Amino acid sequence: MHQLNLGMIGGGTVGSGVFHAWQKNGELLAARLGVALHFRKIAVQSLKKSRAYPLPAKLLTTDWRDVVNDPEIQLVIELVGGTNLAKTMVLAAFAQGKSVVTANKALLSAHGPELFAAATKAGVNLYFEASVCGGIPIIKSLREGFVANQFSAIYGIVNGTCNYILSRMKTEGADFANVLADAQQHGYAETPPDLDIDGHDAAHKTGILASLAHGFWVDHRQIHTEGIREVSQLDMEFAAKLGYTIKLLGIVKQIAGKKSGVQVSVYPTLIPNTHVLASVNGVFNACFVRGDIVGDTLFYGRGAGKDATASAVWSDIGDAALDLKNATKVRVAPFIAHAKKHNRVMPMDEIVSRYYVRFSVADKPGVIAKIAAIFAAANIGISSVFQPESQSVASVPLILMIHDAPNAAMRRALAKIAKLSVVKNQPVMFRVENFD
Amino acid sequence: MHQLNLGMIGGGTVGSGVFHAWQKNGELLAARLGVALHFRKIAVQSLKKSRAYPLPAKLLTTDWRDVVNDPEIQLVIELVGGTNLAKTMVLAAFAQGKSVVTANKALLSAHGPELFAAATKAGVNLYFEASVCGGIPIIKSLREGFVANQFSAIYGIVNGTCNYILSRMKTEGADFANVLADAQQHGYAETPPDLDIDGHDAAHKTGILASLAHGFWVDHRQIHTEGIREVSQLDMEFAAKLGYTIKLLGIVKQIAGKKSGVQVSVYPTLIPNTHVLASVNGVFNACFVRGDIVGDTLFYGRGAGKDATASAVWSDIGDAALDLKNATKVRVAPFIAHAKKHNRVMPMDEIVSRYYVRFSVADKPGVIAKIAAIFAAANIGISSVFQPESQSVASVPLILMIHDAPNAAMRRALAKIAKLSVVKNQPVMFRVENFD
Repeated sequence: MHQLNLGMIGGGTVGSGVFHAWQKNGELLAARLGVALHFRKIAVQSLKKSRAYPLPAKLLTTDWRDVVNDPEIQLVIELVGGTNLAKTMVLAAFAQGKSVVTANKALLSAHGPELFAAATKAGVNLYFEASVCGGIPIIKSLREGFVANQFSAIYGIVNGTCNYILSRMKTEGADFANVLADAQQHGYAETPPDLDIDGHDAAHKTGILASLAHGFWVDHRQIHTEGIREVSQLDMEFAAKLGYTIKLLGIVKQIAGKKSGVQVSVYPTLIPNTHVLASVNGVFNACFVRGDIVGDTLFYGRGAGKDATASAVWSDIGDAALDLKNATKVRVAPFIAHAKKHNRVMPMDEIVSRYYVRFSVADKPGVIAKIAAIFAAANIGISSVFQPESQSVASVPLILMIHDAPNAAMRRALAKIAKLSVVKNQPVMFRVENFD
Repeated sequence: MHQLNLGMIGGGTVGSGVFHAWQKNGELLAARLGVALHFRKIAVQSLKKSRAYPLPAKLLTTDWRDVVNDPEIQLVIELVGGTNLAKTMVLAAFAQGKSVVTANKALLSAHGPELFAAATKAGVNLYFEASVCGGIPIIKSLREGFVANQFSAIYGIVNGTCNYILSRMKTEGADFANVLADAQQHGYAETPPDLDIDGHDAAHKTGILASLAHGFWVDHRQIHTEGIREVSQLDMEFAAKLGYTIKLLGIVKQIAGKKSGVQVSVYPTLIPNTHVLASVNGVFNACFVRGDIVGDTLFYGRGAGKDATASAVWSDIGDAALDLKNATKVRVAPFIAHAKKHNRVMPMDEIVSRYYVRFSVADKPGVIAKIAAIFAAANIGISSVFQPESQSVASVPLILMIHDAPNAAMRRALAKIAKLSVVKNQPVMFRVENFD
């Protein structure tokens, strides 16, 4: 039987999960792939650290170069995270003619084009299934399962921490800060939590999905990104009354027309309670993919965690094992190869969407008229008005649902409204997605 | 650019969909795969038939041998359906050294082992993504995405016709016969509808999933199969009152213990309304897959139709294109290669499940005691009793929910109960699945 020698850099949560899956199902993997798989070396930060699953001492080294430079190792698994050292490691592996499997979305987001170009030049592959949506085989499905499709829309719940917090806020009626603190205490959120709750991690993943789906590299700086800090328990409640759930969505949408392009953005979105994505709760991830041939599809599973991520890493190792066994070093064309000329990320200002807006207004006659006049002047249509009873005398909440309007026009109108003396606080605005 | 010449046998619904997808996205496919794709010949039954999408006359032939024997054609796409002639066609293609893509679950179900053995012997591949769950990339996900997983359970809504009928029965409170007649009129059900509504099509697909997941061939005659004819509007309603939805599920479950094995079966099942599969409505398909490494996952999409199925056929053509370009004729080991010794399909009698049972009983004292005594003697526990108000004087409905019990014990107890004079009709029994 053909044999593949593996070297792993990183023995933390995911790394120990990858090793454990091999201990458990290594024979099955070999039988399925027709390739015997052996771990030769695992580079770790400390030989003494306690791990989710133990790693055998004889495989460990504290020098990642031992892995990259071992001539017996054919495939390098990079699981250290971060962008700078990880990039050095991956390029060093390529330079040794080794393909690399990575789960590192931050790395791809920061240095994707350079890394894929280097892999192509070296005649090796860079595999990255585990970088988006953990155990869900979304990269393989987009690239291979849906190879015949143009992707009119992809909506992803791609950050488990945010989804966990929003789910608890909804079910418990709890406030953001309290749920976050509790999530940190229980290990569902990092400290500091910024990478997750400010939407950056979701933006990394959304950028990878967009690049794969549309065939040109989407730089993370082009992705309009809003996190979930501004989602209050109040808005969660009003949204529910209107039949909506608030989810942090990564959105990749093909926009047709004269000014065509691709919307690539991350923001908290009101989605109808009846939509399947509204039922994706807790740390689970999901991707709703609309292809022009396949129609609507959904993928659901654990987006993080040692085992789910390990499952995706093994999907890549399996592909690499078959590629190496068959000496097809670059079986899949680099995914940015099919870029259309002139494709582009649309600036957020040009994107048209629906909106939920909440104002705090003085409780007196004429308020709605003043606000409505500003929207009317901007040619922005109000689809519904909701003013709940309020105990406060200083101000009352006023919620408007707004018809399709460009983000630039909406932004300008809200700035004007914010200056009205009857408007007591900065208006709160979330976009609404109806999936039609 | 490498070129691949395609020959297709079958120009019906799916065949014309496959061709149309290529007309629409052929350039994109070529760019993604790095392979130019050309149709050389399409064998059809009649040159004059009207089609969902038109096919160019110059490609058409009425003799399938023209496709198989054309030395310029490297890949044959078999889309004729049926088992006998289709088998002859596929074997003839193999004999010419050509790989085959098929959407034909009936063919695989009837002749799988022979076909896969013949492909291996000829050094070619048989691709079958489109045979299960239409556009959902479930075959690729099980085989490649989840390559590191043992599959403790797979639950599939794999027949769109049955799901359409059950969904309408639930939402409209309509009766089976009426919905079926209407579905036939609107093209959502065949005439005769037996292959679908008696569960055979679902059994074909469930057998393919089971074989792939567990590495030994599951003969369709080993699959305990019940259709949806016995699902009445009354049971749909009572199930709803108890918090359940009735779905036709294909079930593939690893059973541990002394008498280990794999449950492979198809039957209408009560599932909790809160479970995500309960929300899969209309003609949509879904697969809930539980892997020992990845955890719980769900795949959702269109299970049939010209375009969704075409998307899956193109997934296979894409794989074949890369395999042929790289001269890796058998990249993926035949999926029955990793069979464990002694693995087996468990007889239904040994399977343990929960049950919903409805009796029509005389409305007089002592009835429940008599029924309960028979269950108690068989060591079968009743978890809840529900006797709705009834207008009838001749008999009243009595619904019992039954704790985990072996199917054999349950079958024997129900036969005894049916003989009681206070029991007026053959008892109605459905199994209950709680996914724990």
